[in-house]
This record gives sequence, C-alpha cells and structure tokens, in this order.
Amino acid sequence: MSEKENGKQAAGYDAWLGTLEGTGKGTIEGAGAWFGTVIVNEQHEVIESARAEWCKAAEELYGIQPSVSQTAGEGASGLLLGTFGSSALLDEALGPDASSAVTGPEGFLIRADRERRRIAVGAKTPAGVLYGVFHLLRLLRTGAVPEELNAVENPVNGLRMINQWDNMDGSIERGYAGKSIFYENNRITENLDRIRDYARLLASTGINAIAINNVNVHRYETMLLTKEYLPDVAKIAAVFRAYAIKLFLSINYASPLEIGGLSTADPLDPNVRAWWKSTAADVYAAIPDFGGFLVKADSENRPGPFTYGRDHADGSNMLAEALQPYGGLVIWRCFVYNCKQDWRDRQTDRARAAYDHFMPLDGRFLDNVILQIKNGPMDFQVREPVSPLFGGLEATNQVIEFQITQEYTGQQRHLCYLVPQWKEVLDFDTYAKGEGSPVKRIVDGSMFGSRHSGFAAVSNIGDDTNWTGHLLAQANLYGFGRLAWNPELSAEEISREWIRQTFGAEEQVVRTVMGMLMDSWSIYESYTAPLGVGWMVNPDHHYGPNVDGYEYSKWGTYHFADCHGIGVDRTVATGTGYTAQYKGRNAEVYESPADCPDELLLFFHHVPYTHRLHSGKTVIQHIYNTHFEGVERADGLKEAWAGLAGSLPDELHGQVAERLAHQAVHAREWRDIINTYFYRKSGIADEQGRTIY
Amino acid sequence: MSEKENGKQAAGYDAWLGTLEGTGKGTIEGAGAWFGTVIVNEQHEVIESARAEWCKAAEELYGIQPSVSQTAGEGASGLLLGTFGSSALLDEALGPDASSAVTGPEGFLIRADRERRRIAVGAKTPAGVLYGVFHLLRLLRTGAVPEELNAVENPVNGLRMINQWDNMDGSIERGYAGKSIFYENNRITENLDRIRDYARLLASTGINAIAINNVNVHRYETMLLTKEYLPDVAKIAAVFRAYAIKLFLSINYASPLEIGGLSTADPLDPNVRAWWKSTAADVYAAIPDFGGFLVKADSENRPGPFTYGRDHADGSNMLAEALQPYGGLVIWRCFVYNCKQDWRDRQTDRARAAYDHFMPLDGRFLDNVILQIKNGPMDFQVREPVSPLFGGLEATNQVIEFQITQEYTGQQRHLCYLVPQWKEVLDFDTYAKGEGSPVKRIVDGSMFGSRHSGFAAVSNIGDDTNWTGHLLAQANLYGFGRLAWNPELSAEEISREWIRQTFGAEEQVVRTVMGMLMDSWSIYESYTAPLGVGWMVNPDHHYGPNVDGYEYSKWGTYHFADCHGIGVDRTVATGTGYTAQYKGRNAEVYESPADCPDELLLFFHHVPYTHRLHSGKTVIQHIYNTHFEGVERADGLKEAWAGLAGSLPDELHGQVAERLAHQAVHAREWRDIINTYFYRKSGIADEQGRTIY
Repeated sequence: MSEKENGKQAAGYDAWLGTLEGTGKGTIEGAGAWFGTVIVNEQHEVIESARAEWCKAAEELYGIQPSVSQTAGEGASGLLLGTFGSSALLDEALGPDASSAVTGPEGFLIRADRERRRIAVGAKTPAGVLYGVFHLLRLLRTGAVPEELNAVENPVNGLRMINQWDNMDGSIERGYAGKSIFYENNRITENLDRIRDYARLLASTGINAIAINNVNVHRYETMLLTKEYLPDVAKIAAVFRAYAIKLFLSINYASPLEIGGLSTADPLDPNVRAWWKSTAADVYAAIPDFGGFLVKADSENRPGPFTYGRDHADGSNMLAEALQPYGGLVIWRCFVYNCKQDWRDRQTDRARAAYDHFMPLDGRFLDNVILQIKNGPMDFQVREPVSPLFGGLEATNQVIEFQITQEYTGQQRHLCYLVPQWKEVLDFDTYAKGEGSPVKRIVDGSMFGSRHSGFAAVSNIGDDTNWTGHLLAQANLYGFGRLAWNPELSAEEISREWIRQTFGAEEQVVRTVMGMLMDSWSIYESYTAPLGVGWMVNPDHHYGPNVDGYEYSKWGTYHFADCHGIGVDRTVATGTGYTAQYKGRNAEVYESPADCPDELLLFFHHVPYTHRLHSGKTVIQHIYNTHFEGVERADGLKEAWAGLAGSLPDELHGQVAERLAHQAVHAREWRDIINTYFYRKSGIADEQGRTIY
Repeated sequence: MSEKENGKQAAGYDAWLGTLEGTGKGTIEGAGAWFGTVIVNEQHEVIESARAEWCKAAEELYGIQPSVSQTAGEGASGLLLGTFGSSALLDEALGPDASSAVTGPEGFLIRADRERRRIAVGAKTPAGVLYGVFHLLRLLRTGAVPEELNAVENPVNGLRMINQWDNMDGSIERGYAGKSIFYENNRITENLDRIRDYARLLASTGINAIAINNVNVHRYETMLLTKEYLPDVAKIAAVFRAYAIKLFLSINYASPLEIGGLSTADPLDPNVRAWWKSTAADVYAAIPDFGGFLVKADSENRPGPFTYGRDHADGSNMLAEALQPYGGLVIWRCFVYNCKQDWRDRQTDRARAAYDHFMPLDGRFLDNVILQIKNGPMDFQVREPVSPLFGGLEATNQVIEFQITQEYTGQQRHLCYLVPQWKEVLDFDTYAKGEGSPVKRIVDGSMFGSRHSGFAAVSNIGDDTNWTGHLLAQANLYGFGRLAWNPELSAEEISREWIRQTFGAEEQVVRTVMGMLMDSWSIYESYTAPLGVGWMVNPDHHYGPNVDGYEYSKWGTYHFADCHGIGVDRTVATGTGYTAQYKGRNAEVYESPADCPDELLLFFHHVPYTHRLHSGKTVIQHIYNTHFEGVERADGLKEAWAGLAGSLPDELHGQVAERLAHQAVHAREWRDIINTYFYRKSGIADEQGRTIY
C-alpha cells in the first residue's frame, strides 16, 4: 500500500470496507484453509467483482492471497462461489433447500462446513452472489467465525436506489462533502477509480440503482442524453454494472425543446413522443441495461406537462412508453407544490400539495412508472409526519425518498444519525388496510402488490477523502442501504455493524459511538425548530438558525408565531384540512390537539405558548428546556468522543472532534436565537431563570 | 446624429446635458450673434473642453456652429473665454472687479453685454473657466436669456469627490445600474468615450476628484499601483484631467505584502515606508497630478495598521509622507467598527465606534490626511442621526461621505431623491462652537480652518444606458455635485434645475416631477424601518423587508423588538452612552425620550409600543399608519407619473413607469411584512381595523 493510500485509509477513505488495525490477521483458527482458495467456475463480471472483493479482504484481514480455481475435489476447503447450478460442488455445499430458501433474484445463501473448512455462497443471479460475499465479509468484520457463517437473505425491497444531486460543473446541490466525484468542468470525470470505490461501498450495502445527475437538470446535464455525452455515461454505467448497480439519468422535461430542436415538449404531441422514443433508442444503444429516467417535473420552476395543460400521468406515461421496449423505468417525483405562494394566503397549505396533485391520478400510471414520494409532506425536516400518499395511493408503484445528505439536519457539521428517523417513518401505521399497515409494507410492494417499489435516497457523498465530510455521517449512507435491504433491522443493529466495520470491536468504542449515534437525531431536534414546526433556518443555504427566515417567503413554510402562540392549523375543523389526508385513527389523532403527539403538535395545530403538552410542560417551557438541554447534550457528544482519544486512529478521531466542537458552538447559536426569539415574542420567562438574551 | 446615438439620447444617456425637443433652436433673439463666435486665446486642455462643450451645445440648442478665433475686435459679439489676464478684451469684458469677486481658484465670473451680444466667462484657472461654461449652459438650459447672464460663483467646498465602488471584474459593489464603465475582465476598459461622457456629467456639476476603484481593494485592484497597470490608469487620468477632475486610487493597506514582496505592512517599518515612497514615485511618474489614495483600513475585514499594533494616525501619516512631495492626499475612511459583534452583547454599540476610534487621534494627522466620515454613525440608512465626529474633531481635515447609490434606499428600483436628506445633515447644528455650528460649516473647512475639506459620495452609475438604472436617480448624482459646490442651494432648486435640463420646461412636468422627487424620501422612509431604527432588510444584498434580517447577526445592527416594545437604548442613563458623543443641546435632546425627535426615537431609545410620539400617535399606531400611507403614497407616485404620459418621450416615460410600478408592488411587501411582524409581536390591533395578515 502506498503512503498516499495509507493516508487515505487513515482519513476514512475505505469507510466500512477497510481493515482495522488490531483486527483480522491471525485471529481465526485455520484461516489458511478457510481463505486459501476461491473456487468459481463462472465468467461474469459481477461474480468477478465478488471474487475480487473476497481476495482483497482475505489479504487485508488475514494476510492470505487466495488461489483461484475453477474446479475442486469434493473435500476441498475455501470459498465456493456461484449461481445455483453452476457447479455440482456448489449445489451440494449449499444443500437441497437452497433454491427454495432464496426466493428473490437478488437473494443468497451462505453455508459453512466446519469440517471441510469450506464456505459456499450461492444465489440465483450474479448480483445475489455479490451480495452474499459482501454479507459474508460484513459478518467476518463484525466478529463472526467462519464455522457460524450460515445465512439466507433476500432483499425486502426491489429498488434500492441512490440519487446523486451532482451537477456537471462539479458542484453538488445540498452537498456537504466536497465536489462531485462524477463531473468536473461540465464533463464526466476520467477518474473512474473513485467511482468504482463508490460502487463497491454502495453494493456492499445492497444498493442496486443510481441516478448520477441532479434532479434539477440544467443545460449541460440535459445533454447527457445526446450522442456527444452518452459514450462517457456508458463508461460510468460499466463501472456500476460490475457491481450490479443500474444507472439512471435525471432528465429535463423540456429536452425536446432544448436539445431536440422541437417547438414543444407536450407529452401528447406526436413529434415529442417520437423524439423520446428515438432518444431512448440512442440511450439503450449505448447502455443496454440502462435503468431509466428520474424526473422532477412541474416542481420548483422545473418544466413539466403542466405547461401544456397535461397532468403528471400524461407526462410520465409518455416517457414510460418510450422506455418500455427496453424494460426501462420512469421514476417520477411527487415533490410538487406551489413555490410561489403568497405568505399572506392562509388557505394554501404546502403539506397538502403532493397528495392533492397525485391522489386523483392513482391507477392512471403505466406499470413501468414509479412515483418517488418524500418521506414527509414538506421537505426532509428534522421532524415531519409521514406523507399521506403512503396509504393513499393503492394502484400506483411507489418508492419512498429519504435524504441521506443532511440538508436540514446539520449539513454533516452536526452529528445526526438518520436511521432512527427512517425507522419511525417505515414503521408508521398508515391504516391503509386497517391497523397494521405500515409504510414499509407499502414501499416493499407487498401491501398492494405493486410491480415496482422500494427505497430511494439523496446521497451524502462528495470528493472529500472520507466521502461524507463528517466521518460519522458514513453511518447514514451505510444505514440507508442496509435498511433498504431489510427494514426490519434495528437502528442499533445497523449502527453496531457500521461501528465495528469502521472502528473495530473494542467495546468502549462500540458502546460510546452507538450511544452518540442513537442520541444524535434527538439532540439535533432538541436545539432546532421545536415540536415539528420545521424550518427556522437561514434561507437558501439552510444552515443555522433564523426563526423568521422563511416566515414571509413564497415557499409555503411558516410557523405563524405571534405574541400568543405558534403553529400551523392543519385541522379540518379550523385549518387547512390537511389532517383529512390521513386514514383511520391517524386522521383523528392529528386532528385533535389533545391527542396529537407532542413532537408533531405545532405541525398540526396553532396553540398558545401556555398549552400543556403530554409531557406536562407548557409549549414555551418545552422550547426553553429542550434548547438548554440540547446544548448540554451536544457538549456531551463532544465529551464522549474525547473519551475515545487513543482508542481510535488520531486522524479519524481528530476529524470528528473538530466537527463536534463546531456543533457544540453552533448549538449555542441555535439555543440562544430560538430562546431569545420566543422570550421576546411571548414575554414568558424561563421557569428556571436561565440566561436568555 | 446616428440612429444609435438617437436611441441612446432617447434612453437618457445624455442626462442633463442633452438637448430637449421643443426647446432651444431659434428661441433666442439674435442667437446668431450671441453664439456665432467663440473667442479664446489660451491653449489648455480644460479650456478646450469648455470651448467644445459650448460649441456642442450651441449646435444642439440653437443650430449654430460657432466659429472659433483667438482674437477679436473690441466690438465683437459671441463668447469670450479665458483666465484672467489672458486677453485684454476678456479682462475688459469682465470688468475691474473680476479678480476680487472670484475668490477661489475654481470660481468664475460671467458677464453678459446686451448691446454687444457678448458673454464673457473668466476665472483664475482653466477649471474655473470650465465650470463657468457649464454654469452658463445650465442657465441657458433652464430658461435664462443671454442678456441676463451675469453671475459670480465660487465653490464652497474644496474637495468635491466621487467614489466609484467598481471592481476590476466589472462588478460594482452596491451598484444598481449595470456593470462598471471602467473595467472588464480584470483590465481597464478601452472604451474611454463612455468615461469621457461621465467626466462631462461630473464636471458639469462641479465634481473635481474621483477615486476609480472600490474601497474594498481586492487582488487585481491592488495591482493598479504597479507598472503593469499604471499606464492604463494614466489613460483614465488623462480623460478626467481634461475636465479638471483629479484621479485617486483606493489602495490595499496590505500592498507591501501582496505586491511589494515584503513580509509586513507595518507603517512604522522602514522597508514599508520606503516601499510606499517608491510606489508613490512610480504613480506620480505615470500621473503627475495624481490626487492621492483613498483608504478603507481595519474595517470590515480589510487590512490596516491594527495588525501591527499601530493606530489610524500612524497608518495614514505614513502614506501621507509618501505622497507629500507630490502634493498628494490621503483620504482615510472612518467607517471602522467591530463587524464580528456577538448579538448577545448589549454593551458594544456600533454607533459609537467611529467616534471612539478617531476622537482620541484628533490633531495627530498630517495636514495632507483627510478623514472621510459617513454622514451618520451607522451606514447610509434612510434615517440616522448625524455622525458626532462632525463637531467632535477640531484639528483634523474632514470630508463628509454620502451615498448616492441607493444601497439602503431602494436600490434605484424605488424612487428616493436624497438631496433633502443630505440637506438635513448639512444643516444639522453640531453646537461645536455653540449654537449655529452646522455640519456644512465644518465640512467646508471654515469652522476650524481646515486645510482640506469637502464632500465625497459613492456613485450610483454603471453601464446602463441611462447611467443610473432609475432615470430619476440621475437627480441624486446631479444634486450631489451641485450641493458640494454650494450647500446653500435648496433641494427644490436643485430638483428644478435637474428637471428642466432633463425633461424641459413644461410647467406640469416640472411641478409633477418636483413633487415626486421632494416626497420620495419621506415615502420610502414611511414604508420601511420605522422611527430611525434602521435595517430590517434582507442580509447581504440589502433589498426588501426582513425585520429580523440583521437581528441575530454579527453586524451590530439591532432593533431589540419584543412583545412590549422596540428600539436601541443609547442613552447615558441606561444605555450605551452614545448620546454623550454629541455636544450641547443635542446630547440633552437625544438623551431624553420626551425630547428626542420622533423620527429618531427608536435610534436612541427602547420604548413600549404604547409610547406616545410628539405626533400624538403611539409607536405601534405610527408604524401601522405610516406603512398603510406609504403604500398609498407610492401608488401616488405611479399615478402622478402616469399623468405625464404624452408630455415626455415615450422611452423615458416607460422606463420610469416600470420602476414605479415595481415600487408600488414592493412597497406592499414592506407594508405587510412590517405590519404583520409588529402586530404578531405586540398583539395590538390597528385602530382603524385595516388588513394586517
């Protein structure tokens, strides 16, 4: 390993696929037998990736360079790798129940034979083999011994997708970890190594799709569909293909105008339809397994079918027809609302918008169209209710969209482990088919028998050496993939996996970091916007406190604080009627200020500062308490981490310590601005007489 | 005139030096005699500019191309032009009292002889001759007949300076009328014609100095002092020289480090002193009449002597010594304050800063150093008290700095004629030598016998065809020059002059536009930040309402509104003690909430919303009333202008109509945001029950 590579590793470049000092080598009895040989008799680039990953890890973990052979005798030791039926030895090693245990095309089976010191990984497809090997390595890196390696896994969700919000000028919209690894100077990068390492990271968590350009598609990005750029796109696709990840492009709905030379982009215009068909043919000629288009249309000033008096079904079905011959998908985002709202208008409610736009279209989309729905009705706030489209739509393919990049959750300068938030969303009961209809059963397609479904999320990576800026934010990228694979994993389990693969097995480290991660969302929430009301950030860049930052704006994001109280009345009785978009008990609970959960009270209700929460505190005292406590808890994160000095590589420890120190200072800014704002506005003093400016 | 030139003229390019349709030609009896000849027997570029200006005007106004001769017989008619003693004929025409009437080097005498149809313009210097000719043309363009042309004028202020905040990338800091006419792509422009026309406009109002680059001196601008750039700077200097305008450069205090190869910029370091002396020699070799340096040091993150433990006197005197051999000046800005204030800190008061920094240095500056002091203690707000440095400093050269560019007064999208504001400042009694010590007597140098003094202002022009974006904002550029020449001119007189030279003599036009101009400051004030408290604008770009925009920032600009009241307590009794920086009655008046003028109440005092103003209204009701009325008055501007359709060229009328329409809409945004903010905060309803959101 070169010095530079050493430096990269020390700086977090290898993420959860690195080798940890003090672990690995020589710790497993009979390692030479278990890891000395790889037996694989298929020629497939994805299986080759799996093989290479195994060999790399064997060397790093155990100092063994495995020999690779296509065949072996019955008693051979080592790793057997392949798809079912590819070799009799493999089939035998996996046992007779293999095919029935692996129910999905991407599932896998792992069987260890203690006597023979042999591990077999089998799957229906090469992708499954790759996932099996990554799973095997995850188990080994988290302390499993070879003889215990028996597992069968099938991914719960079909689509497990990453959205890059990368622009071709090298910037990343809402990116907080450097520049794009995909683009520079309006061209696709020639540095495919970094992209390959990203593909490895993603595949190791089970990701199987990626859209490589920002959903806001500007001039250069529009041209990715053209013959000038497609050869370069194809190079990226090839990198991901070797890791079983399909490549998608975000497209500009106005492409027929901007690059097609047409005078319209009307989805019902025959020339437009012909243009998209011809363009699809070009794309598939360059990339035969191209995934499809991701589309942000008629949203935040992006063009779309509304311009031509058409609706989202017209708009997306037209694209779907163009992609259908090739098995391509259209992923159509539901983030559609009036972004030119008059703040004086108390009737319009942005929270209602996605449901109001898309519910009437349920059942009208072709079966290769998927709606991509943000987890909440607003925009990735630290706390929102779940989008009522989940449970509303019954006859439409859906994926849920999360935001790994921490736009509103501290921008990777604050620690905010998001898996607990995502878990809450996934476990939320929609009452779509009565009690016991959680979101996760809708987005995995099982509730309504959807043809396509799954998870999508906005990536948090850039060209920072450690990928995510804040090293601990790697846990969010890792966690998203794992949760998309299996939403039943707990946030703790995922964090433990990540910590052990990143920092090793020392119990104090694992316990401390897990405690920090698990507390972090609640800490961030405690010193930012209270009780679900959201926003209160500086406009545009969205960093740091600004209580009225969006109060008199066109974005539909208000808190309506006055000297008496605060919150948005979204009830049917006296407000915008948003609560009626929920089903069953949810509609009743949210409608009632008495029943509404504290953490969402101000999202649904405008209440006096003296309103008493279920917690027993008044709203105003809750604001003061949480903000004072939040700062103490942020200090606690810093201190907890300081206690790990010496237990972690200095470089990694220092990186995180710096971010936590900033967080502690910045948390004070949040605390003081929010507390002062509400003290000035309400005139109500803190019961405990703490300093408010 | 080419079609293009016609178009430019129609779009306002000629400003107040154009010819108006329907005026001029043939309206003066005997024009052929009065204007047929110019007699001038001196060879001087400034006198040549005067002659050329006269000939151009004679042709445009009367259709006469004057013949130019060096001598003439005793009975000759036409214009005689020159410095005293340059010809016996001129001296005779001016009469025996000429030299004694013209007391200053830039003054002039105009004498008309009805019988001979002869006008004589004489002065001590070519500059005076130029000002005389421009004055003559102003009189003719505003309706004077030749036989009445008798005048003697001497400028009241020595330095009458314009500061360009132009950057070499072509941008203009706080510029609202296009890009720089001086620079593009980090080079000095080759289009000297536009600069020459700007010089004509400035000289016509009496401006005699200009600093051509932004006081924030960045990388490229720092290099203007180098031999690479000085030849181009010299070209600009030559253009201005022909109009008797001296060229200054804003300099970077860290130049010795950035371009001098030194390791310090310490003003007491011998190498630094030598470097500046050598640099001054280079500059004067290229531009022998170079004016000097304008310096923003230790202000808003600009470098300065503080870095080296030196003070502003050390810092400026060092530069002054370098320039002294050449008669150069150092103009040192007093805009120094802590721009990293903690908003929690209620003791630090930005308003105090300039006085606190500079008063202790009074008397320590060399006599070619001039302090440039902003009119108010904050930063060009729509309403501020006068800077207490005026009347404080007694032994220091001073110029007052105004801001023609409308950074905080509507950015040339709102109409705001600033001359009335400047008049108030100039007439403000400082009590420096007891009652009757107005600011204008300090900045003209007479009160303390200053060697150098005068006016400076930040320009409002860019490369927009009409120079100022908002056509009516030309009146501010014009008015500044006229007021610098003679602070006794009234705002009405100046506006009348400008209107007649710009739009002609039609009485309805003059009356309407004058009414609009004279009301405009008050209108803008009425719907923006109330009662002198200032700010309430969006951060950074400073456009549009944002009540808390600067409330929790580091800039020292707060209003401290809470549910009980608003304002900044700057009293000695209970506040920051700022009022003690004033002398005599001012200190008492400002200290007392009962005596403080309404319009400055919230600048000096924190009062309850129910505090009753001298007007009889409560503070809160005043806020509501003025904001409702402000919108009506903004509508009134629009309507008044609409009434002039047909009386003005369509192009000019349309330009202004568009701006006034925007203003009316944007005034509503101000009204509603401010009213809603204070209604929500105070809980006090409008007495008249008008709509507050």
